[in-house]
Amino acid sequence: MKHMKYLGKQILLELYDCNHSKLNDSELIAKIMVQAAEIAKATVVQQFFHHFSPFGVSGTVVIAESHINIHTWPEHNYIAIDIFTCGEELEPEVACEFLAKEFEATSHTMDVHMRGNVEEIAKGKS
Amino acid sequence: MKHMKYLGKQILLELYDCNHSKLNDSELIAKIMVQAAEIAKATVVQQFFHHFSPFGVSGTVVIAESHINIHTWPEHNYIAIDIFTCGEELEPEVACEFLAKEFEATSHTMDVHMRGNVEEIAKGKS
Repeated sequence: MKHMKYLGKQILLELYDCNHSKLNDSELIAKIMVQAAEIAKATVVQQFFHHFSPFGVSGTVVIAESHINIHTWPEHNYIAIDIFTCGEELEPEVACEFLAKEFEATSHTMDVHMRGNVEEIAKGKS
Repeated sequence: MKHMKYLGKQILLELYDCNHSKLNDSELIAKIMVQAAEIAKATVVQQFFHHFSPFGVSGTVVIAESHINIHTWPEHNYIAIDIFTCGEELEPEVACEFLAKEFEATSHTMDVHMRGNVEEIAKGKS
């Protein structure tokens, strides 16, 4: 049996050389992000997207298990995403692969970080 | 002269053993988060907070330079924050120290990650 040592997991996803036409379309981005949340088996609570002038989109999908964030740089065909999830049932890595495919990234990297060290939390309770 | 190699910086901030009474108060949390954005010298665009039942708060402050996120776990007196900024003028580390102090964390850790590798972006343009 795996011992749970952290409360959550945050994946930093870099998407390079994406399909330019998708990076400034906030409606399409919102749709893809909600789909990604569903693919990760997350429960969508609320969503929130902001279109910057002259270009670029920032957005957050609040999920019951934390969040999924996006920032697009159309001028660089680059997207920064992070997915923060809690619980063993979620599949954020699958969502990352979906996002890379949907935005047609030529290359991408995933960086996984564990959040909320349970041993450190226990110290405060002792 | 420092050569800019990345578009942005994301700091993952862990706050342990915080003041319990503050972790379920979404109004107070929103106020502290906006103050943190201002201390980081960021431009606040929008804010968005969600209070979970029975407890816990998730929130995002969208800034012109990306975002600041928070998730609180009142049952563990633990808070996960991340601050994503672009530009050399911003001071997210100062905001992190402010947040640790405001939430009265007994211990905290900051993990800095650079986002958007400029060399990788250039490959897509060649």
